[in-house]
Amino acid sequence: MSAPHQLHPLDVELPKHVEEALAHYLSAHLATIARTEESFVGAVDALTGFVLGGGKRIRPTFAWWGWRAGGGDPDGPDTPAVLTAISSLELVQACALVHDDLMDASATRRGAPTVHVAFAGQHRAHGWLGQPERFGLAAALLIGDLALAWADDMLQGSGLPAAALERLRDPWHGMRTEMLAGQYLDMLTQARGESAAEVALRIARHKTAAYTVERPLQLGAAMAGGSAELVAGLRRFGADLGVAFQLRDDLLGVFGDPAITGKPAGDDLREGKRTLLVALGLDRAGAAEAARLRGAIGRADLTESDVAGVRALLVEVGAVDAVEQRITELTDSAMDALHATPVAEPAATRLAELAVSVTKRTH
Amino acid sequence: MSAPHQLHPLDVELPKHVEEALAHYLSAHLATIARTEESFVGAVDALTGFVLGGGKRIRPTFAWWGWRAGGGDPDGPDTPAVLTAISSLELVQACALVHDDLMDASATRRGAPTVHVAFAGQHRAHGWLGQPERFGLAAALLIGDLALAWADDMLQGSGLPAAALERLRDPWHGMRTEMLAGQYLDMLTQARGESAAEVALRIARHKTAAYTVERPLQLGAAMAGGSAELVAGLRRFGADLGVAFQLRDDLLGVFGDPAITGKPAGDDLREGKRTLLVALGLDRAGAAEAARLRGAIGRADLTESDVAGVRALLVEVGAVDAVEQRITELTDSAMDALHATPVAEPAATRLAELAVSVTKRTH
Repeated sequence: MSAPHQLHPLDVELPKHVEEALAHYLSAHLATIARTEESFVGAVDALTGFVLGGGKRIRPTFAWWGWRAGGGDPDGPDTPAVLTAISSLELVQACALVHDDLMDASATRRGAPTVHVAFAGQHRAHGWLGQPERFGLAAALLIGDLALAWADDMLQGSGLPAAALERLRDPWHGMRTEMLAGQYLDMLTQARGESAAEVALRIARHKTAAYTVERPLQLGAAMAGGSAELVAGLRRFGADLGVAFQLRDDLLGVFGDPAITGKPAGDDLREGKRTLLVALGLDRAGAAEAARLRGAIGRADLTESDVAGVRALLVEVGAVDAVEQRITELTDSAMDALHATPVAEPAATRLAELAVSVTKRTH
Repeated sequence: MSAPHQLHPLDVELPKHVEEALAHYLSAHLATIARTEESFVGAVDALTGFVLGGGKRIRPTFAWWGWRAGGGDPDGPDTPAVLTAISSLELVQACALVHDDLMDASATRRGAPTVHVAFAGQHRAHGWLGQPERFGLAAALLIGDLALAWADDMLQGSGLPAAALERLRDPWHGMRTEMLAGQYLDMLTQARGESAAEVALRIARHKTAAYTVERPLQLGAAMAGGSAELVAGLRRFGADLGVAFQLRDDLLGVFGDPAITGKPAGDDLREGKRTLLVALGLDRAGAAEAARLRGAIGRADLTESDVAGVRALLVEVGAVDAVEQRITELTDSAMDALHATPVAEPAATRLAELAVSVTKRTH
């Protein structure tokens, strides 16, 4: 067992180990599929490429630190099972992203064609029967479903003891349901053209806070058999930090440098995302400015100069400052929750650092 | 404990108990969701309506009889957990159908609008922002995902002992993967315009035999802790019976009475389904007839009289007789497997009856 305050090599190189666990799981199943239904290999390859092709591994990272917070020992016998279990979160996320890109009709992700676009292109290149777009839709639908089904299988087959799996049941159920509820609320809100700050915060709470931070932390703590006090404290920390994380994301979606974020500037505006930033902008703007803002949100043909105009307006009416202030308040209250919780080292220190890095990041 | 050869009330009224288990699970979660994210209630309501709105409960039925075959006692303490576990198969099926309807752009199912069509209609009625079809797509995508996630949760939370859940792990993984592989192969085959009998049989093996009969039987037997010999025998029975079931379905899709099947006559032809029936028709037809057949398959605008022409052709070249013969052979070999397997009564008798009813049915 390593010294409690010292970082273990696994703590430092976690993303690499998550990727190894995913590669191991996916290649084992690819081998089975190649033997039983060779034509499905193309779908599994696409999923593998997507999962291993990028991502910050942020959900496994919070789950890992939830486990370490509960006293999980990287030199103990459960470590391989824990690594497999936390890595399964990336398969849930693969489903969310592949299906999200399909819903939003997004053409690219991480600089590459999205799954539905890539399969439509394959269809077109082969000159197959029917519509390429319909083929792309079907492929992305099935590949997302496969990711969701395999996420469960990877967790259940991780090798965690039955008692730990039992403790994971409720948070695992909650996490996936909240993710889907958040996505549903998001699309409903866009369709209705709602822009209340309260709704924007509810979307952030489900889609990001619960799904990305709070539940992964809870899952990790539950794997370690952490106390009810620990779990409750980590959840409070995660809920506030997660909303702050989303608010930072919202700011980056409008003000981020495309060279750093990898996303075209202003795409969140073109997509019509109903964020707290936009809600506060509408609240604080005068009637004429609010109308201008309302007219810009969700317009796919917004030019660079339109985007610049929206940015200036959001700064001017104080919406940006208000969101920044909210991020600070939420981060502070997250830190208060963390300090009030009996978190084992080095997790306490590392979670405090993570809180800073996810709320102050530039991409 | 009831007499071994006698049917238990649960055996007789199984679909009712499956529906009760589903209603119980769904309403419990609806209550939680109404408290935490009220806007998601509409999605959960739609899923509930879909799941409780119809279906033959055929997968839970095979799973139940797999359990009974392994000596499962309806008067024993595990029965409520078994009922919940087998009912979760209907949530997997809800995902498959909702997503399948979206892929096929089907407008109706069981006489009602499909989920994506219903939500597009809701969008249109409210005059919301964006395209109604895109809203319908997103809703059906998320509702299908929710069904798939909850299927796992319903199984894991069924109350089955940990040892039983452990035994279910591999068949549960296999079943969902085979279902998705079958759907993928199906759409790939349609796109490529392939019509080999061998491919049609492979689709039937994955999509129907494995997913609908073989794996549910195996899951049930595994719940009961059945012997390896029992499981192997039931799987052989299920694999052959399942293909026979699909071949009957293919015949009904072309020759069935719409008043009985509930589906418009000839819809399988319009959709371009690549069935064994069509493959054998193409194999056995002369060049001119084959060209005519090839031209008709997958044409959405096929008239009643076109359909009648295709039917006559399939009878004439002997494709219908050949499929009927294949159904008989497969049913016979399924019965041989059943008789060679140590199946507890009344399951042996009931499975033999089910084999007849699913291969001789008219709807």
